[in-house]
Amino acid sequence: MSGVTGTAGEQEFLQELIQHGHFLPGGEAGVYGRGEIFEDVRSRFDAFVSSVAAPDRPQRPHFPPVIPKCTLEKAGYLESFPHLCGAVFSFVGGDADALDLVQRAARGESWGEPFTMTNVVLVPAACYPAYPAIAQRGRLPKGGLTLDLGPSYVFRNEPSGDPARLQMFHQYEMVRMGEAEEVLDWRETWMRRASNILAEVGLNYTLDTATDPFFGRGGKLLAKAQREQRLKFELLAPIASPQPTAVTSFNYHQEHFGSAFGIQLHDGRVASTACLGFGSERITLALFKAHGMDIKAWPASVRKKLWHESRG
Amino acid sequence: MSGVTGTAGEQEFLQELIQHGHFLPGGEAGVYGRGEIFEDVRSRFDAFVSSVAAPDRPQRPHFPPVIPKCTLEKAGYLESFPHLCGAVFSFVGGDADALDLVQRAARGESWGEPFTMTNVVLVPAACYPAYPAIAQRGRLPKGGLTLDLGPSYVFRNEPSGDPARLQMFHQYEMVRMGEAEEVLDWRETWMRRASNILAEVGLNYTLDTATDPFFGRGGKLLAKAQREQRLKFELLAPIASPQPTAVTSFNYHQEHFGSAFGIQLHDGRVASTACLGFGSERITLALFKAHGMDIKAWPASVRKKLWHESRG
Repeated sequence: MSGVTGTAGEQEFLQELIQHGHFLPGGEAGVYGRGEIFEDVRSRFDAFVSSVAAPDRPQRPHFPPVIPKCTLEKAGYLESFPHLCGAVFSFVGGDADALDLVQRAARGESWGEPFTMTNVVLVPAACYPAYPAIAQRGRLPKGGLTLDLGPSYVFRNEPSGDPARLQMFHQYEMVRMGEAEEVLDWRETWMRRASNILAEVGLNYTLDTATDPFFGRGGKLLAKAQREQRLKFELLAPIASPQPTAVTSFNYHQEHFGSAFGIQLHDGRVASTACLGFGSERITLALFKAHGMDIKAWPASVRKKLWHESRG
Repeated sequence: MSGVTGTAGEQEFLQELIQHGHFLPGGEAGVYGRGEIFEDVRSRFDAFVSSVAAPDRPQRPHFPPVIPKCTLEKAGYLESFPHLCGAVFSFVGGDADALDLVQRAARGESWGEPFTMTNVVLVPAACYPAYPAIAQRGRLPKGGLTLDLGPSYVFRNEPSGDPARLQMFHQYEMVRMGEAEEVLDWRETWMRRASNILAEVGLNYTLDTATDPFFGRGGKLLAKAQREQRLKFELLAPIASPQPTAVTSFNYHQEHFGSAFGIQLHDGRVASTACLGFGSERITLALFKAHGMDIKAWPASVRKKLWHESRG
């Protein structure tokens, strides 16, 4: 991580994005409006992914960017990533408290004191809301289940000067639930498919094992175990940081979510799950980095793939 | 407002939505996953709106669902709607604090104490991030500016048993900035256009002056002035509540946002602004209420409009 100022390369790329109207700054690191062309590229890449997923006939539910905090608790998020969590707090008070709030804000002071925790938190990973929703339908069918959740907004509390590290961004997420072997096969298939997708849009990617940014001292052990068990893989592509940036991740959860949310196989055993997420904005940024700020000057093969072949 | 339980009609409609897979419950009032068909209807209605807006050649930036809290302060939101605000808080602490957090959660206790306010809040109205973004570009062109922000997620802290009152929902928002007369003309045009749109999808609407849900005792005066000056209009349609529900609103802000954010006309005077928002989920719900839970049984004219004529 490069801190709130960002490296020289990150700062330069951010300024370029702003000059070309792809990012619209709003006064906070990692929170930008996006220009029309940026959004067009992003949605066309998403459509490409959707078209590759279509033959699997996935179910396509959609979830909003907040979840009940009990979902976060059950998922064990607080153990692993308390520092990234965005909890939604709201104001509770009467007229005098509200006036005090306004006056504090006017004086440039903090005005969070009268706020208390609501029942909802921002979604930290796009697959989280899917687990309780599927669990409560009853046992999985034989052969399990595949979900295409589409692009969903997720939040990470990590203000950064790196334009590829946004506080709120889209994960294009898919989830597989079933027997361990089915789930691992699916992940394997998608590592290949996703590599092809990135190659077809002209990105220079590498595939590697990876770890999540676990919190604290205990987190080091968790990361070590995760790497040893090859639970997480990432596709990385050059954006603006000195090292390539993760743009897609493939995560095998073993029975973690299955047992946390009570997801059962057709015969009542605990289901295994895996998910994969394309970082929708990161891939769009990687495309601008690789092919330039002007989409009209992008390679014909990439333009053809995104603008002519990928509407589902 | 009908409270967290909802009226009998609201409860019944919510159960019907769940039975048909249009809403996926997750344990919190006003927070639901949405089924594939629900999302298909919603996105097709959005495409219809987008196609009606296209001849105006609007700019189409997109903004994420969080904004810097200074945007909220400048907009005067805290004065009017402190009770609806969702502020994002995050955990600050070391290993021992994190462990305490996890243990509190495990005991079913509140775990919000070590959380402090971040620099961001949830977007309360989809037009808010547009004002500072436009202001910093410099003066408006002659004739002003029209924005089509598309569907954007907004948050309101009002858990409710009414399925039409979600905590997080899409506003399909458009904004006009310019001379007072230009802005009012645009609002007038869109009241007509939006009425036609609702008629074309078979909704039985009414148009009325309206007021915002201002906070506290002072709020009553604000609402009275707003109604007298005809600053807010709404289109209402039957959903599940005893009274019709607002599904589209048209808001004239006079110079409120222009002076708050320093938006200037081509000659340096303060710009006037107006916005309109289609409640994307509410309209989808109104369609299911009017035409039934099975889209295959919807009137041919509505199906034709949404599925065959409205891809932009």
